[in-house]
Amino acid sequence: MIVDTERERQVREALAAAHFDALICRLPENLVCLAGYYPQISCSVVVYPTAGDPVLIVPRLEREQAAAGLVADVRTYEAWRLSDPSPMESALRLLVDVVVEKKLKGGVIGYEGSFEAVAPGQMAGEPYVPGLPTRQMLAELIGREPVDATDLLHAIRACKTPREIEKLRLANEVAGLGLRVFKEQAQPGRTEAEIAAAVEAAVYAHGTGYRGARYARAWAQVFSGPNTVEGWYYPVSSARVIQPGDLVMIEIGTVVDGYWSDLTRTVVAGGKATARQRELYELVLAAQRASLAAARPGVPGREADAAGRRVLAAAGLGNYFLHHTGHGIGFRYHEPIPSVHPSSPHVLAVGHVHSIEPGVYLPEVGGIRVEDDAVVLEGGAQLLSQRDFDLD
Amino acid sequence: MIVDTERERQVREALAAAHFDALICRLPENLVCLAGYYPQISCSVVVYPTAGDPVLIVPRLEREQAAAGLVADVRTYEAWRLSDPSPMESALRLLVDVVVEKKLKGGVIGYEGSFEAVAPGQMAGEPYVPGLPTRQMLAELIGREPVDATDLLHAIRACKTPREIEKLRLANEVAGLGLRVFKEQAQPGRTEAEIAAAVEAAVYAHGTGYRGARYARAWAQVFSGPNTVEGWYYPVSSARVIQPGDLVMIEIGTVVDGYWSDLTRTVVAGGKATARQRELYELVLAAQRASLAAARPGVPGREADAAGRRVLAAAGLGNYFLHHTGHGIGFRYHEPIPSVHPSSPHVLAVGHVHSIEPGVYLPEVGGIRVEDDAVVLEGGAQLLSQRDFDLD
Repeated sequence: MIVDTERERQVREALAAAHFDALICRLPENLVCLAGYYPQISCSVVVYPTAGDPVLIVPRLEREQAAAGLVADVRTYEAWRLSDPSPMESALRLLVDVVVEKKLKGGVIGYEGSFEAVAPGQMAGEPYVPGLPTRQMLAELIGREPVDATDLLHAIRACKTPREIEKLRLANEVAGLGLRVFKEQAQPGRTEAEIAAAVEAAVYAHGTGYRGARYARAWAQVFSGPNTVEGWYYPVSSARVIQPGDLVMIEIGTVVDGYWSDLTRTVVAGGKATARQRELYELVLAAQRASLAAARPGVPGREADAAGRRVLAAAGLGNYFLHHTGHGIGFRYHEPIPSVHPSSPHVLAVGHVHSIEPGVYLPEVGGIRVEDDAVVLEGGAQLLSQRDFDLD
Repeated sequence: MIVDTERERQVREALAAAHFDALICRLPENLVCLAGYYPQISCSVVVYPTAGDPVLIVPRLEREQAAAGLVADVRTYEAWRLSDPSPMESALRLLVDVVVEKKLKGGVIGYEGSFEAVAPGQMAGEPYVPGLPTRQMLAELIGREPVDATDLLHAIRACKTPREIEKLRLANEVAGLGLRVFKEQAQPGRTEAEIAAAVEAAVYAHGTGYRGARYARAWAQVFSGPNTVEGWYYPVSSARVIQPGDLVMIEIGTVVDGYWSDLTRTVVAGGKATARQRELYELVLAAQRASLAAARPGVPGREADAAGRRVLAAAGLGNYFLHHTGHGIGFRYHEPIPSVHPSSPHVLAVGHVHSIEPGVYLPEVGGIRVEDDAVVLEGGAQLLSQRDFDLD
């Protein structure tokens, strides 16, 4: 077991302020936050009472992983054998006792009602999410309709603790293992899919076991040449073969033990960038530096957005920077807090982690975006990611 | 646009029999089934009225993919630029018109209320699912609470059409590209994660563009030596280094354009299998053949399970085959129909696609499982996957 008093304080204060009696959560991303544990088959449940100790219910084969997290009271069930009920039925049997012990019957119980974008657990090919059955199960268990705690959970998650920031630094470092392969492989003659596959493989093969990481996984999309023009959308890698002089962009989401990184790099394949490519790239980097410098505690998210946007507008590129400057990140690929956007309602605070991802997309040149993750600290924002290579 | 009259007939008959006025779905797996289209950012919606033509709402940049599916009436919205509302808000604006045109106001509308295991869309690092906001949006749109249509959707999905069976055959063929790499790479000195990463990379790199496939992706888990003993659970690949003579098992889920394959192979690393390993492997294969031979239309799922289970029981291994023989597969990694399990409530029917995955797990030897996907046809079941290599 590990201790994170800052995380515990944040959760308890938020629960008390919202007059909840407990949170009962099953989404992997909320278990990572509340219990410091990243579910494998994603049929684990945490009960976090406003008063008293939390309880974590997991399949027996995940006991070791769960016990390495933030919750001392880990209870287990058997799963997947012929004689076992479904995992969630087994979890429910244990929940019944927890509800009695923690006196939660009839209480105000928060659940994950409105999560419509979710982080997959370790078995990412088939994510598990709470639907009507989970809601009904909670209603019967508690004897009262559970209350949607999605906004509360996002608020709890907004400010990362020093321990969590180190985890996010590691996720960015592991993503870097993939990005170095991207730079090597983004060459004429390779297909977008081949490059992306090699990047993902590097993260999986070398991230697993890296500096204590148990689980590492990336989702990389590579798009090139004319496919970069609409790179503000989320294109997927195609079988297109890279041509000399192509702009090649990678968007890569990486998860290490439940903590996420979100990065974008753009390079020129096989040779020197043209003067125009170089000029645009330097302007994008300047916009990123300006937003990074502006991202200080107490500064509105819209100001951090505006700082970079002004750089591009001054160069006549205002109409080509089509999207937000950044979004929150941490327990998922994208988190809502803080938004770094012209209409962001958020004020930056110590512990906020967000992307800074200015980009320009010109029909005649292509798209150039650079995305890094930054953490807001007392003295200002600091990048969690590294830039190991240049445009060409 | 393509035509699949069998799929359309199944959907319409099921909707009429259940007295629904329409289905409104957003999960990628249901769009693949109902609209023959695999969403990219997963913010697409299909409206399938019991009478009248279906409508598909997608982001503009997915128009081409959507138009290659089953629905003629494709409507688009813009997404992700500063001036655009959220994708689901944009979809809702278009839905308002569809509800009027199709006279669905106040009708019985089925939605995906109870999906708790889901297939990710193309952006698998962050799946989108319907939660309370989707339910509330539908209730306001229709002027009446939507009805949970999860069971109906699973029933609609149970019998695959000839067109869909060909798609599943292709998914299995693409998975085979990865399995050949598994056989090459499962050697002493490699780590589990390295092998799994190479397999996934082969599917992504060579599956993209393969025989018309647009999108190919695999999730491979490799476990070896003592880690195979509890291989009936879903272990994840570790940094463990393969030793000579180890059993090495791969569990691989593969998606090609929204159609899934689920395969398992077991090999011995670096040399010949021992007599005991060979004996167990041959018994597992014999069990698989027996279940395959039993899987005919009209046969209960529990009989197809029992056929293979008898083979292992006769060899004294009844207590080591811990799990079901199989589960449905098609629009997701695991589907509930048909269950091939001692307590299956299903009777096999033409078009059912299911796994056949007997395995034995002996503490002193390790785990051996072989899993293939089979389709039930008039004359009996046929494997969709190929076995290109042996135990050693």
